[in-house]
Amino acid sequence: MEELRKKLENLKKFFKGKKVIVAYSGGVDSSLIAKIASDTTETLAITIDNGFFSDDAIKKAEIRAKKYGIKHEVIKLDAKMHELDDLIAQLKKNPTNRCYLCKKIMAIILVNEKEKLGYDLIVDGTIYDDLFEDRPGIKAFREHGIKSPLAEFKISKKDVYELSNYLDIEIPKKETCLATRIRFNQEITGEKLKRVEMAEKFLSKYIKGTLRVRDDDGIARIEVDKDEIEKFFSEEFIKIVVDELKKLGFERVSLDLEGYKRPLKNNIHKNIL
Amino acid sequence: MEELRKKLENLKKFFKGKKVIVAYSGGVDSSLIAKIASDTTETLAITIDNGFFSDDAIKKAEIRAKKYGIKHEVIKLDAKMHELDDLIAQLKKNPTNRCYLCKKIMAIILVNEKEKLGYDLIVDGTIYDDLFEDRPGIKAFREHGIKSPLAEFKISKKDVYELSNYLDIEIPKKETCLATRIRFNQEITGEKLKRVEMAEKFLSKYIKGTLRVRDDDGIARIEVDKDEIEKFFSEEFIKIVVDELKKLGFERVSLDLEGYKRPLKNNIHKNIL
Repeated sequence: MEELRKKLENLKKFFKGKKVIVAYSGGVDSSLIAKIASDTTETLAITIDNGFFSDDAIKKAEIRAKKYGIKHEVIKLDAKMHELDDLIAQLKKNPTNRCYLCKKIMAIILVNEKEKLGYDLIVDGTIYDDLFEDRPGIKAFREHGIKSPLAEFKISKKDVYELSNYLDIEIPKKETCLATRIRFNQEITGEKLKRVEMAEKFLSKYIKGTLRVRDDDGIARIEVDKDEIEKFFSEEFIKIVVDELKKLGFERVSLDLEGYKRPLKNNIHKNIL
Repeated sequence: MEELRKKLENLKKFFKGKKVIVAYSGGVDSSLIAKIASDTTETLAITIDNGFFSDDAIKKAEIRAKKYGIKHEVIKLDAKMHELDDLIAQLKKNPTNRCYLCKKIMAIILVNEKEKLGYDLIVDGTIYDDLFEDRPGIKAFREHGIKSPLAEFKISKKDVYELSNYLDIEIPKKETCLATRIRFNQEITGEKLKRVEMAEKFLSKYIKGTLRVRDDDGIARIEVDKDEIEKFFSEEFIKIVVDELKKLGFERVSLDLEGYKRPLKNNIHKNIL
């Protein structure tokens, strides 16, 4: 605990006297860094809403910021920054470097806000553990001068949980990027992201645990935890699911017979799903 | 029956004295026309094996030809006719005019054989009913001068069955084109066609009725008749299927929750599946 308190002090020292923008998703890591910054200095947490996270996730991020007294702003990615047009067009094609492009777009917006509002630096919630994974988003943020104090001060996932506990910050449910539901090189559209979001919301009423509705070029493929597959051993339930997902715009509705499988760690950016 | 016998006489008259190549798949229509031609005049039935039909289907076509005394040859589509390179490259990309391109390639090979071997004409098994459907393959054959005597003499599906019966020709099981398992614009490869073929062969041991294993860019999607879906209501059976299909090279294995649906008639070339 002594060591952890030391790390917290280092973080506070790091922020002291600076005006800080936090790239804030509402997740456990960025919530922690936003709270520490906000308790220490003038801080603005910014969530960029590009449609890749559910409306629920954005709303929860807002509620959390309010709850912990963090000044917060959501910036919707719309077509007002024309310097982004080309990057957005690339991103929509859903190339394998999707994560990098997405974070690059976010970084440009954040840097723009920083300059416009006269802030001193931008930080994100990257932790020490993340440095050992292949995370192309980190690279994009680094290229735009965004700092990762949690990583710099060697704060691990375990430390994040302990510090959150110490600072009385609730651990939020993990939100995942909806773009991961769409296969690489199949176009990302708002319509596709929305129907994935709605389909998962609908199924979550029936399914426990992990749940993904993949969009394989218009075909829904439902992934659930292995022990939840038997919920589909019912003609009635199948009919309910098929009817609803087709109403949402899926052409066909299928069930992945293996169910959800966590991707390999070192492949996480490809599959974080 | 009198009218039918008249139609048969017309067909025989049509063939008389000509050396005929029949585009022969082993299906009910081309078997009938091949038999009638072969009983009347010098006839060579040619099956072009481009990998789109299962090895079983090709073998059955050979056995049928032998059984009915029809001279028969299988031409494997390999890279010896360089004038086809461009068309084959187009076809492999699996565009929406796949059926047209496929038949065009067949037509060119057939015309080449006709000239090489000194035959007078090429016929196919197109029947009268087919003319009222949107069949892009017919167009390709027409463009290369291939005749459709069954259609010309207004022989309907019903007539085909009656004539086959009259001539003592067994009705074969319908074979379908394996390329239809691959979604448009997803590359057709020999490997994909082969694993679809193997997967369907494997599943046919367990599943009755219609059975399709679609390849959605490496993801197997199994379609069975609605009343066969409950076979999958078993963890054990799912395990058997997943293990086998993954062994065949599929990345993921899914079950279509609606099961097989016959496509609309006027859409048949898009979906004949």
